[in-house]
Amino acid sequence: MLFKVEMTVNPPSHLSEEEFNAIKIKEKNYAEELQREGIWVHLWRVAGLYANVSIFEVRDNQHLHDVLMALPLYPYMNVSVTPLCQHPSSIK
Amino acid sequence: MLFKVEMTVNPPSHLSEEEFNAIKIKEKNYAEELQREGIWVHLWRVAGLYANVSIFEVRDNQHLHDVLMALPLYPYMNVSVTPLCQHPSSIK
Amino acid sequence: MLFKVEMTVNPPSHLSEEEFNAIKIKEKNYAEELQREGIWVHLWRVAGLYANVSIFEVRDNQHLHDVLMALPLYPYMNVSVTPLCQHPSSIK
Amino acid sequence: MLFKVEMTVNPPSHLSEEEFNAIKIKEKNYAEELQREGIWVHLWRVAGLYANVSIFEVRDNQHLHDVLMALPLYPYMNVSVTPLCQHPSSIK
Amino acid sequence: MLFKVEMTVNPPSHLSEEEFNAIKIKEKNYAEELQREGIWVHLWRVAGLYANVSIFEVRDNQHLHDVLMALPLYPYMNVSVTPLCQHPSSIK
Amino acid sequence: MLFKVEMTVNPPSHLSEEEFNAIKIKEKNYAEELQREGIWVHLWRVAGLYANVSIFEVRDNQHLHDVLMALPLYPYMNVSVTPLCQHPSSIK
Amino acid sequence: MLFKVEMTVNPPSHLSEEEFNAIKIKEKNYAEELQREGIWVHLWRVAGLYANVSIFEVRDNQHLHDVLMALPLYPYMNVSVTPLCQHPSSIK
Amino acid sequence: MLFKVEMTVNPPSHLSEEEFNAIKIKEKNYAEELQREGIWVHLWRVAGLYANVSIFEVRDNQHLHDVLMALPLYPYMNVSVTPLCQHPSSIK
Amino acid sequence: MLFKVEMTVNPPSHLSEEEFNAIKIKEKNYAEELQREGIWVHLWRVAGLYANVSIFEVRDNQHLHDVLMALPLYPYMNVSVTPLCQHPSSIK
Amino acid sequence: MLFKVEMTVNPPSHLSEEEFNAIKIKEKNYAEELQREGIWVHLWRVAGLYANVSIFEVRDNQHLHDVLMALPLYPYMNVSVTPLCQHPSSIK
Repeated sequence: MLFKVEMTVNPPSHLSEEEFNAIKIKEKNYAEELQREGIWVHLWRVAGLYANVSIFEVRDNQHLHDVLMALPLYPYMNVSVTPLCQHPSSIK
Repeated sequence: MLFKVEMTVNPPSHLSEEEFNAIKIKEKNYAEELQREGIWVHLWRVAGLYANVSIFEVRDNQHLHDVLMALPLYPYMNVSVTPLCQHPSSIK
Repeated sequence: MLFKVEMTVNPPSHLSEEEFNAIKIKEKNYAEELQREGIWVHLWRVAGLYANVSIFEVRDNQHLHDVLMALPLYPYMNVSVTPLCQHPSSIK
Repeated sequence: MLFKVEMTVNPPSHLSEEEFNAIKIKEKNYAEELQREGIWVHLWRVAGLYANVSIFEVRDNQHLHDVLMALPLYPYMNVSVTPLCQHPSSIK
Repeated sequence: MLFKVEMTVNPPSHLSEEEFNAIKIKEKNYAEELQREGIWVHLWRVAGLYANVSIFEVRDNQHLHDVLMALPLYPYMNVSVTPLCQHPSSIK
Repeated sequence: MLFKVEMTVNPPSHLSEEEFNAIKIKEKNYAEELQREGIWVHLWRVAGLYANVSIFEVRDNQHLHDVLMALPLYPYMNVSVTPLCQHPSSIK
Repeated sequence: MLFKVEMTVNPPSHLSEEEFNAIKIKEKNYAEELQREGIWVHLWRVAGLYANVSIFEVRDNQHLHDVLMALPLYPYMNVSVTPLCQHPSSIK
Repeated sequence: MLFKVEMTVNPPSHLSEEEFNAIKIKEKNYAEELQREGIWVHLWRVAGLYANVSIFEVRDNQHLHDVLMALPLYPYMNVSVTPLCQHPSSIK
Repeated sequence: MLFKVEMTVNPPSHLSEEEFNAIKIKEKNYAEELQREGIWVHLWRVAGLYANVSIFEVRDNQHLHDVLMALPLYPYMNVSVTPLCQHPSSIK
Repeated sequence: MLFKVEMTVNPPSHLSEEEFNAIKIKEKNYAEELQREGIWVHLWRVAGLYANVSIFEVRDNQHLHDVLMALPLYPYMNVSVTPLCQHPSSIK
């Protein structure tokens, strides 16, 4: 089951650059792991913004929630979730 | 080059169902053609809404514009366009 | 899997009262059927508005989409969809 | 009498994690107590967000207000309140 | 129990002035009746707008809903509902 | 002359609880005084929110401004002001 | 007492140009009359829009309401009203 | 050439009252000077808010920009700018 | 003096395609004339939308207003106007 | 390929004036360099605001993203990106 998830990062001013970079490395590792597992199926950067458009393939809403809540950057992001399904004109 | 395009259809009350269905058939054929050409690379239905989330692969902004403006349903849709690019954590 | 769905009805001015009442009767029958099937698990009226707050239990996003798109009143409604899941403090 | 209450938590950056966790434990206990009393009748997590959709059964507006204002997390939440009532198509 | 209800009238262009005036007379009679019954406790005009700010005293949400839905002008209004309760600094 | 004034309090995180409580006590005294003077004619709490709906009776705009600006909590509030006048259907 | 009033005109598509022009002439006469009476003290066009920014000097809210409701173009306008008063840094 | 400029002040919590008062005195002097020069032609307080509605008479956009950027309170304000011109119904 | 003007066209459903095309031809001629006169200095299409981003060079606000109001498509457009001036980092 | 990029600067209160000025000098040098390279083709200041309207000429979305992300002021700005293309009525 697919979901579109859009994430905008708001770098916190109360963390040092080192602290924030450490979190970003964890985020990168976690994102790559989820992609290898076929959960994070698409991850695009929004041109010009510190934001991404992502497509997640998950078992259900709970699975999506658990995956997103484990994002190290989660506390510093605005997240929107849109459930997707098959489009009648899609040839896939 | 990738763009996210979101489309919400607002069925017009001044057209008959037949007239609107005819336009929808043209739209479906055109969408399938663009998918076969690798331009309309992803087309998902937003669950519960008469809307879609799409990813287009085009040469440039002009190519995107021409492709979208030729959508038979275009006059009856709200469209938003977001330019995308490679995400540093994407493994593709 | 649960979804919150909020619906606001915008009675169309181009239909006669009889035509619109006929649609509303179909809607009522369909809603009651879905409730008996355990799909439409909660249906509340928003006090003072021609709107409702509903909870749907469905297999997945596609099932939700198909159920909602079959609502006779769908063309005359604004619909929002929110995926839900277990809350850690819920005792159910 | 039913109310839909939606709560979005904005973790405060001026509290330590320990301080905030202590508040969250109080919140969990309080929520469970209200559920056992039949006041907090539904509590769902919004998938992907630090937010919930809840249904409260209370005597009146004042009762709702007192219950919500006693939430330990209240100062760190955005709250919206929607009064509900019987839907003519509900079979309950 | 008190509710603030704000109503903005959008005169329909598909009704003749006579038809709309007839509805407005019914609205006026109904409003006066509710005021005499102590249900519609305050009714103020917003200066410069075809809108009002009202306070209703009702038994519960359902009572409020039934009262508002019977407003002859209801189909031509945007309505917002806000539940009120005792303010700790009110001396009434 | 009547005005509807809606106030939402945003407790400041840079003040201690004691400091903020002291301000709230001043606010309460001031509010009670204005009510006794017949200026603050209605003061209701919005159920579930740290906000109020109020009706002020003042000589003119300047009087309203001076009264509101003297609110001890003013710096920590979002305020909206709506001028009111006699509604043709009001029986008062 | 001063009010800022902003008006945006939305020409109705269900009236002929002649009918609408006739209304505009009445509007112009009425506006000039109010200016001569010192009620409509400032009337500026917003550059590039079919809208104006106006300052009205009136006795009270009711006077403002009556003046605005008599605008022939009123049914075809969005209107916003802002009460003004003396600014401490104004040298007038 | 006229512009409407609306300014809302957001007192900064990181400055002491003395520091902020000093800035406000500079602002007042500067505002009075611009009024004497016929640049700041109208300055009204919005009743109930820490905001103003102003009309500036300037040579061109650049002149307006330079005048506004020199406002001592500028860093603590939200500012909106609307270009104005002669209204066909204005008798001035 | 420069202004950014953004225009979004909303094709009217009450005009025939021929009538609307005739207006569009007048619009095109007028736009080309203004460009030759150095008034409409930049005219770009927003990719994917029936909208444009334009830069106008005019004497003053009144000149801008007169130019825009003469656009044949004006009644069918949403227009926003932003005054521009020299940027300190611009090398032109 | 052209993009409109609008940037609004929000000066951070946690940096000293010197620190922020140093960043602004880097920004100015970088902006001038990009203009000389023909990437930042237009840079206008929005009159009255700490914001700009810019037109960028870039190879593709990725190029735009890399250019914008390297802006020293980027962390302190709200940025919006709009893809542009040839307008059929443009004579360039």
